[in-house]
Amino acid sequence: MKRIALIGTGVIGTGWAARLLSQGCVISAWDPAKKFDTELKKNIEEIWPTLEKIGVSSDASIDNLKTFKTLQEACCDAELIQESVPEDMRIKRDIHNAIGKSSNKDAFIASSSSGILPSDIQGACNNPANFVVGHPFNPVYILPLVEIVGGKDTSQSTIDTFREFYASMNMHPLVVRKEIEGYLSDRLQEAQWREILHLINDDIANTKELDEAIIYGPGLRWAIMGTCLTFHLAGGRSGMRHMLEQFGPALELPWTKLKAPELTDDLIEKMVSGTSEQAGEKTVKELEKLRDACLIEILQALKKFNVGAGKYIQS
Amino acid sequence: MKRIALIGTGVIGTGWAARLLSQGCVISAWDPAKKFDTELKKNIEEIWPTLEKIGVSSDASIDNLKTFKTLQEACCDAELIQESVPEDMRIKRDIHNAIGKSSNKDAFIASSSSGILPSDIQGACNNPANFVVGHPFNPVYILPLVEIVGGKDTSQSTIDTFREFYASMNMHPLVVRKEIEGYLSDRLQEAQWREILHLINDDIANTKELDEAIIYGPGLRWAIMGTCLTFHLAGGRSGMRHMLEQFGPALELPWTKLKAPELTDDLIEKMVSGTSEQAGEKTVKELEKLRDACLIEILQALKKFNVGAGKYIQS
Repeated sequence: MKRIALIGTGVIGTGWAARLLSQGCVISAWDPAKKFDTELKKNIEEIWPTLEKIGVSSDASIDNLKTFKTLQEACCDAELIQESVPEDMRIKRDIHNAIGKSSNKDAFIASSSSGILPSDIQGACNNPANFVVGHPFNPVYILPLVEIVGGKDTSQSTIDTFREFYASMNMHPLVVRKEIEGYLSDRLQEAQWREILHLINDDIANTKELDEAIIYGPGLRWAIMGTCLTFHLAGGRSGMRHMLEQFGPALELPWTKLKAPELTDDLIEKMVSGTSEQAGEKTVKELEKLRDACLIEILQALKKFNVGAGKYIQS
Repeated sequence: MKRIALIGTGVIGTGWAARLLSQGCVISAWDPAKKFDTELKKNIEEIWPTLEKIGVSSDASIDNLKTFKTLQEACCDAELIQESVPEDMRIKRDIHNAIGKSSNKDAFIASSSSGILPSDIQGACNNPANFVVGHPFNPVYILPLVEIVGGKDTSQSTIDTFREFYASMNMHPLVVRKEIEGYLSDRLQEAQWREILHLINDDIANTKELDEAIIYGPGLRWAIMGTCLTFHLAGGRSGMRHMLEQFGPALELPWTKLKAPELTDDLIEKMVSGTSEQAGEKTVKELEKLRDACLIEILQALKKFNVGAGKYIQS
């Protein structure tokens, strides 16, 4: 699939354009903003040298970007349409209604929504079975994650098609198996974000302090391991089970405004078996060594730009 | 200050020992576990080559590690005592009571607690004014962050002393200005952790999927920028204010189990002025370029170990 329409060319739509062009796609783009075409081309030209550092396919060209004055023209010939308009249900539904009237019935359609249920958008589509949420992360041209979320009318073959398409765009597709508001990644981000807003609102800390609380500590680990595997390592040699034993009681303390679920045997079992599967053949000791080696490289990488924790590298 | 006692030598205490030895301290260590001394020395020898990559001071030596059979012997001559025993109020208070009986009255004392209020521990101290929580992050010998939290009886000069001491240990001291359960960094981590437990408990996702939702996306950014500055960039050219306008309504949606505070004008102002101060002279465009350059370096660093998003680097 190479003929892609992009509807909406803000920060996210521009990111899609850059990534897809770098992987050899032909893009037809439309945005309601006047002169969006000049802005889009200028931004992609600025991004291109960055893309070349990650890898650009041999058939890729900025000249494969075509812009159109109407949504209809942008959509009519596309095999796949990625919508990135503002996060507003009414706008989303109006746009998908218009896309339905302008595109081939067998075109595959994704919304870049970051939290709306696909079932709530797809009713506006001409062919709901071909619709998913395909949620990328900013900057879309660098971060590989894309969440695929189907709605109640989405077919399995549509999910499979998007998984293959995004993988061919050098992305990491994560299929969200159950439809849920905010999907997975934004639920984790949103919990942190809301906690931040509470701490600021209650005058406990300012934005700088809360950012420092991440970039000099846990943020360095999150490039390497998620919280589950990180906490598996925090449990010492016996991993997640010991960690839950030691910090289980803290779940009842007001360490955030978010109430925790009860730590039942069933939940403990899911946490332990899940992280043990992730660890695979590697012992906690081996994972620690891998983590440390990565951390050192990340610190040295940050040092080049004198950013964040990089300034604490002495040698 | 160079004569340091470490009480408790689990994962965190061992991390302290390694970091402090690498910066030229003389360490007296004690742990209730039998043969803790052999284990501790072995672990530090394993960590040492990693420390050499970050920087070891010229007067540093593993031979500066002394282990003792009693808490009394370990503490009696120390200028500063760092306690890292299990996160249990009764254990903490018993240990600080014992420390008080064995140490100089003018010794400075810190607990590595990750969430308990210092005011709830310091009552057990001989000299409460000299006590703080000094909360490090695992692995303590690599991550520079350390939160300093004073209790109601802590003197300002004690806070200042710890800030200077930790900075001299090549750490990033973050003074938590208001005493609060979980302090700052763990509140942000704990919000995410509890959301994870809910998602696993509700069978929405497994630990691997939730870790992937971080390491291929937002986790890569968190090594460079915290959530506040990241969202400042997500707002396009007009930054945090535009971001709050666009995603403000989502705060009322169930995108996490955590309820958000009301987005008042006052809260908006704090978020906007805070992130604008963090951005300093740099425009959103300039910050984006810095972020992208760092992201590429981080991806290339991860690629060396074929870890996480590193596998998506093609060139």
